[in-house]
Amino acid sequence: MIKTIAFDADDTLWINEPYFRDAERQFLALMSSYVPEQTALDALTEIELKNISIYGYGAKGFTFSMLETALQLCKEELPGQTTRKILELGRSLMSVPIRLLDGVEETLEYLAPKYRIVLATKGDLLDQQHKLERSGLGHYFEHVEVMSEKDQKSYTRLMQKLRLPSREFMMVGNSARSDILPVLEIGAYAVHIPYHVTWCHEMVEGPIEHARYRRLDSVRELTTFL
Amino acid sequence: MIKTIAFDADDTLWINEPYFRDAERQFLALMSSYVPEQTALDALTEIELKNISIYGYGAKGFTFSMLETALQLCKEELPGQTTRKILELGRSLMSVPIRLLDGVEETLEYLAPKYRIVLATKGDLLDQQHKLERSGLGHYFEHVEVMSEKDQKSYTRLMQKLRLPSREFMMVGNSARSDILPVLEIGAYAVHIPYHVTWCHEMVEGPIEHARYRRLDSVRELTTFL
Repeated sequence: MIKTIAFDADDTLWINEPYFRDAERQFLALMSSYVPEQTALDALTEIELKNISIYGYGAKGFTFSMLETALQLCKEELPGQTTRKILELGRSLMSVPIRLLDGVEETLEYLAPKYRIVLATKGDLLDQQHKLERSGLGHYFEHVEVMSEKDQKSYTRLMQKLRLPSREFMMVGNSARSDILPVLEIGAYAVHIPYHVTWCHEMVEGPIEHARYRRLDSVRELTTFL
Repeated sequence: MIKTIAFDADDTLWINEPYFRDAERQFLALMSSYVPEQTALDALTEIELKNISIYGYGAKGFTFSMLETALQLCKEELPGQTTRKILELGRSLMSVPIRLLDGVEETLEYLAPKYRIVLATKGDLLDQQHKLERSGLGHYFEHVEVMSEKDQKSYTRLMQKLRLPSREFMMVGNSARSDILPVLEIGAYAVHIPYHVTWCHEMVEGPIEHARYRRLDSVRELTTFL
């Protein structure tokens, strides 16, 4: 019944969140002469969430949020050198090495002849395209969709683009909020493969129970499950 | 023969470049206590072009380039207040009012029942989606493609997505470099409607002559030309 399998990219195919957490740690260190670490972290998180509707997801928005937080915490006495360091932190996130998660390449190799394989990722258009290029996985995907938000509306639009009824679609990803819940809501299948680091914004409470839902420990298990 | 017409968005459907030029003027004014205007403009243009491959097109990359230029021109003695003003200039570009160009709505209204109408725009994903929402034109477009670059490769990919031979495709836009030349190269039709302000990066030299090319003075002329 399932004919198309879409994969999330960050923390589903390759490591991403640890790089953001590392940049965040470096940012907190830059702020440590102004405020305690927890104060800086709270301010950054608040500003990040507030800014999502303007900047969207990804490294660029994160960089703007770090700058805004720094200006707020330093009461605008922000040295140019620190501004430059924050810009460099942001740029480093746009050129991180792509380290595939265990089993990803073999699983795509196994699934590609049997299903239409799609990439459905959230974030910055150019940055996600660059990461896919660097990953060397591009040839597995018949369609690449970079979405500004992963909600019911955007998945419905994706079904229209793919000319696909949702009952033939399965999404595989690490975020319950973005890859699982909206997909189940539109009548498609969803496989959750949690990653050990999750951004607070992507967390949902409580276990998910649904006939069209499966939770796996590794992407490798897809080959036996399907 | 032509079945699908794709429109560029910025400066084809609505006014865009003048807002960037206005932000640029405000940036140059912020820099005027450090360097002469022309020096600042040259530095900004150089940094913008260098950064396209990292940040892509659009307001976010432009904001990063303004910040980088400012740090360079002030030799890192950039006051926090100026950093904030540059961030605000960038944000203002992400919420500009959408002013449709003359004849756009009537032309789409006329063409929509006769052709498949597509939006093919370059820039930041979320920002372009927001502008389309604000424009009120969303319902005319069967497909919206935000592209990180408008070159032969990306137009070929668009033809595949639309499942369309290029001889049935026509692109309408204001940029010879992005909307016309690569489209002619893949065997499709292109209509050039120049806008009175063009970013230097989008300019090409000399007139274009091609059997599948037309230059119009206004989008209105599409209805008589087709």
